[in-house]
Amino acid sequence: MRIAIDAMGSDQRPQPDVAGSVQAARDFGETIVLVGPQTQVEQELAKHDTTGLSIEVADAPQVIEMSDKPTSVGRDKPQSTMHIGTSLVKAGEADAFVTAGNTGAAMAIATLNSLGRIKGVKRPAISSIVELAGQVFTLVDIGANTDTKLDWLLQFAVMGNIYSQKAQGIASPRVALLSNGEEEGKGDQLIRDAGPILKQMPLNFIGNVEPLDILQGKADVVVADGFVGNILIKSFEGAIETMFTLMRQEFGRDIISTAQGAIARPVLRRVYDLIDPSKQGGAPLLGINGVVIIAHGGSNERAIRNAIRQARQAVQGDVISSIADGIAEMQLPE
Amino acid sequence: MRIAIDAMGSDQRPQPDVAGSVQAARDFGETIVLVGPQTQVEQELAKHDTTGLSIEVADAPQVIEMSDKPTSVGRDKPQSTMHIGTSLVKAGEADAFVTAGNTGAAMAIATLNSLGRIKGVKRPAISSIVELAGQVFTLVDIGANTDTKLDWLLQFAVMGNIYSQKAQGIASPRVALLSNGEEEGKGDQLIRDAGPILKQMPLNFIGNVEPLDILQGKADVVVADGFVGNILIKSFEGAIETMFTLMRQEFGRDIISTAQGAIARPVLRRVYDLIDPSKQGGAPLLGINGVVIIAHGGSNERAIRNAIRQARQAVQGDVISSIADGIAEMQLPE
Repeated sequence: MRIAIDAMGSDQRPQPDVAGSVQAARDFGETIVLVGPQTQVEQELAKHDTTGLSIEVADAPQVIEMSDKPTSVGRDKPQSTMHIGTSLVKAGEADAFVTAGNTGAAMAIATLNSLGRIKGVKRPAISSIVELAGQVFTLVDIGANTDTKLDWLLQFAVMGNIYSQKAQGIASPRVALLSNGEEEGKGDQLIRDAGPILKQMPLNFIGNVEPLDILQGKADVVVADGFVGNILIKSFEGAIETMFTLMRQEFGRDIISTAQGAIARPVLRRVYDLIDPSKQGGAPLLGINGVVIIAHGGSNERAIRNAIRQARQAVQGDVISSIADGIAEMQLPE
Repeated sequence: MRIAIDAMGSDQRPQPDVAGSVQAARDFGETIVLVGPQTQVEQELAKHDTTGLSIEVADAPQVIEMSDKPTSVGRDKPQSTMHIGTSLVKAGEADAFVTAGNTGAAMAIATLNSLGRIKGVKRPAISSIVELAGQVFTLVDIGANTDTKLDWLLQFAVMGNIYSQKAQGIASPRVALLSNGEEEGKGDQLIRDAGPILKQMPLNFIGNVEPLDILQGKADVVVADGFVGNILIKSFEGAIETMFTLMRQEFGRDIISTAQGAIARPVLRRVYDLIDPSKQGGAPLLGINGVVIIAHGGSNERAIRNAIRQARQAVQGDVISSIADGIAEMQLPE
């Protein structure tokens, strides 16, 4: 398998991108294609011992910034790492593309400039494989679409279900709608409309879930409009970040607190590991005709390595053709 | 001032409701009217030393359960604590009503059976005064309305702004829209439509905020559709609850961890105090023609006492007539 990686994706590029790629090449034994400005990438790569590893470099002179507008990158930076990386996938020269860069730009380039949508997909979605508190769930959509229409949302459920089966290895994922109450009839119009239809579809649909239910592992696939899904995931992340900030603040308040913190550190470290967002490190673009995984901009080496693992699982699970089949078989309501 | 309290609101009723009321009567020197089944309330009250306090009991034989449907309580339980409590406010025999009971039922009864809406208010909203990590903000709506229309949302902003000024004492509250990005143009259709209009209104409108911005104290009033606001607040609460569950789990894992936890306890206690949700303990119903404050069903004595403080501040600030004026002066878009 050949996995293309954006060497210039993360905020700290190219250090974590390249280091994570080297780690992945070592751990998984696959070929890694680092996509970025040739000289710069080779210089970074030279810092690592790559003996026996299969790592190539594909030149891409342009780099997309987090501030670049998704609407203009396709035109303005045709030689970007994202163009080259997704084009490698389209040409069959790579099986997947991983980037920690601008999500909107990656979605726009993948959709409009290279891979395109899987046939029949109304709107591609950004999903996120979240591991929190020992629970793993797939959330779809986390922000590609706002004001989601009913048929888009039903497709999100189908794509998320297939991804969870094929890439995450869950035989019969529990699929749920994110809502403001568990009872049937709770939710906004979209959720109230979607529930009865999902119940009739060939899915293990378990109804509505609330945020705490998700953290308690009650669903494997959580389906939401992208605006609401984005608020959910950012609220989880924000609350956790705030808690750790408070703990650092309080343990740093005086010398006694610092000593107490040092003593409790092994336990606090275990707690941190349980909610470390870099564990899964990958947000698959669902509905794109090729495996594209987005990692967090703040990714460290471990997160990049784990996003590559995510890409590998998606390729091994033959997710794209399964989604194509699943979408083709769907009967959407009139 | 006379504040009516639902003696049978909280999950542990009547213990926290009555104990918190006694505490409030002592701390604030106001008259408390406990509303509930006369004998039961008097028996509970007898457990406390109420010497010198002004506490009365108003008989209400029926109790609303969390499982009761808001659509039927008006008809089915006309002698409930919520009917009697809100009717006391309507009759001028109390200045405010506080309940830790079923929020939907309280909203339905206040709107349809007793107080009614303030003139011109399209839809009442449930706001929440949230204190987290040392930051206080007013979130409106947290669940009274889904599929919010533009003019409802604009009114939420006006009502939240006035509440923040008059009850929270913030001279020029920073009003923001909850969105999936700070930039103008981010958000779903409702948010994108509301931004430019709010900018023209006589408010200190600061644009969009994301969940982490809120936790960092960037806004005093956060405006959202009730479905989205509900997801936000439940995500914050869920993540915090999960973190504390993990900490209890890991500190309880073995005898060494437990000892380490005991040593760190003073600091962890300070962290907990900083995010304790019972601090403010009150969700005002905005747009209702009378002060009604909802406390969390899981309220303890402290949370009830603080919800009463919230009610007192709303009465002192003359919130209702200020909202009436604010709504009357609003020029809604065609």
